[in-house]
Amino acid sequence: MRILVAGGAGFIGSNLIETLLQKGYQVACVDNMSLGNTDNLAVAMKHPSFTLYEGDICDGEFLANVFQKTRPEYVFHLAANSDIQASAKNPDVEYRNTYSTTFNLLSCMREYEVKRFFFASTSAVYGNKPGIRLDENTPNLEPISYYGAAKLGSEALISAFSYMNDFKALVFRFPNVIGPHLTHGVIFDFIRKLQSDPENLEILGDGNQTKPYIYVADLVEAIIRFMNEIEDAQQPVTLYNIGVNTATSVKRIADIICEEMKLENVTYHFTGGAGGWKGDVPRFTYCLDKVHCAGWAAEYESDEAVRRTVRHALGI
Amino acid sequence: MRILVAGGAGFIGSNLIETLLQKGYQVACVDNMSLGNTDNLAVAMKHPSFTLYEGDICDGEFLANVFQKTRPEYVFHLAANSDIQASAKNPDVEYRNTYSTTFNLLSCMREYEVKRFFFASTSAVYGNKPGIRLDENTPNLEPISYYGAAKLGSEALISAFSYMNDFKALVFRFPNVIGPHLTHGVIFDFIRKLQSDPENLEILGDGNQTKPYIYVADLVEAIIRFMNEIEDAQQPVTLYNIGVNTATSVKRIADIICEEMKLENVTYHFTGGAGGWKGDVPRFTYCLDKVHCAGWAAEYESDEAVRRTVRHALGI
Repeated sequence: MRILVAGGAGFIGSNLIETLLQKGYQVACVDNMSLGNTDNLAVAMKHPSFTLYEGDICDGEFLANVFQKTRPEYVFHLAANSDIQASAKNPDVEYRNTYSTTFNLLSCMREYEVKRFFFASTSAVYGNKPGIRLDENTPNLEPISYYGAAKLGSEALISAFSYMNDFKALVFRFPNVIGPHLTHGVIFDFIRKLQSDPENLEILGDGNQTKPYIYVADLVEAIIRFMNEIEDAQQPVTLYNIGVNTATSVKRIADIICEEMKLENVTYHFTGGAGGWKGDVPRFTYCLDKVHCAGWAAEYESDEAVRRTVRHALGI
Repeated sequence: MRILVAGGAGFIGSNLIETLLQKGYQVACVDNMSLGNTDNLAVAMKHPSFTLYEGDICDGEFLANVFQKTRPEYVFHLAANSDIQASAKNPDVEYRNTYSTTFNLLSCMREYEVKRFFFASTSAVYGNKPGIRLDENTPNLEPISYYGAAKLGSEALISAFSYMNDFKALVFRFPNVIGPHLTHGVIFDFIRKLQSDPENLEILGDGNQTKPYIYVADLVEAIIRFMNEIEDAQQPVTLYNIGVNTATSVKRIADIICEEMKLENVTYHFTGGAGGWKGDVPRFTYCLDKVHCAGWAAEYESDEAVRRTVRHALGI
């Protein structure tokens, strides 16, 4: 099967591509290299079934050309802004890199009659709903970040395009995903800070912001596990919350990093109030019943995913 | 108060502007005249408190200039594609005229620190949910038209922008709105067909597609009624289903038109299966408890709204 991975040079996309190639698929990657890079594709580039198209998914002519050349049967859409803190200062980034990439991919699928679509959505579509166990049927989705808004808008597009053109789509709402090829976020900030000052660590918020972290290998396994099952789906769009049952606080992340860096006398300095940065959802709980009933569960718990990521980042 | 009405030369916008001017507001209108026209603004143009800015809301520089000149305190967003059948053939229309107009208006509000926003959303955000009484808490919004998708994406943007910038927004999900200045849709199609052949009428679908039709004057009254109440809202976004408790079938619309045109022997020819055109939701039921409890109800029932619109279109 011929597969196109949009955003394939990024964190999750590049991990997915390695596994797809291992499974014997023909994989093309389209990426503008704004957040992705060819280092992430080092393994893939050596594979005869892999082709890289460097360019902008927002450029309709370029993208149509990629579809024309590759004639994909399945499109995986992992191209998006992934730095929510950055786009909080400039919502244009989400309009362009998150929403418009979805629109352009779906439009090309419509034109070239590609019928299978995978979309990397996010827990950020739910907004801030303290005390509610978020499942796929939770009503009143009210994103509080431009990122969450662009992803929810993308989900709406997927619904309409799938219905209008007889697509079948698989949508995963991820929590925080971590692992090899990750390049930003709290783990990296803390490592960088501790490398420059091994005795003090400034922590934004009160350290109790607690989130589930999923290890990227688990996520990729879930994608591969469900990608073919959509053939049997009765609905145009199949939606899953994907995640882990456990969660890790920001303070716990700091503790794990200190343990792995063998730093014993670090003083934590908490700043900026309880909530962390604006647009961030400080704490949420995911209901994973649907995906568990469908036969998938993560191998690594949240703390373990953090520890593996820290060790990978430190090269240990 | 200084008000900017985006899409003010269109059907609903022009009706709203007339009432806002009557109430003593300073009103600026921005419209690209793609669906709107200056005829709709004939009354407004004579008013000293009215200014028209003709141009494209997707042109960021033009729009910023309008904000700079008018310094609005309240933005009413009624600019959108309103011809769902047309955009079914070309989703770009919704990307540009429905979603991107919302993004650009919200971005300008962010830049110019405008804090109050009204948005004309739609029942199409719910998708096709036969047997479910649609209320504001209905989960799993799955639009089946590009129009519904672009409106749902716009609602997501409004949620994030409002949270991030301390806006207060009022969002109405309209059903079909009809009345003076309307220029397309089933009522006009039937009148046109019957004017050219008073003995035969082709009806798409089985004639049982049944929808609530709200008269535009009722809708405008609801907007004015709630526009100031958002000051007291606890949430960034206040959302209402707006509509009427009754509904009118396509066949009943044909009957009313024949009555008003005094045609007695018209043969109806039903074509195209039960559902009408693809992307259309053939039948839906709205729960209006929330808006009724808040003290508003429509004056005209659905059949009466249809009849008044027919009489206006026929000039009787």
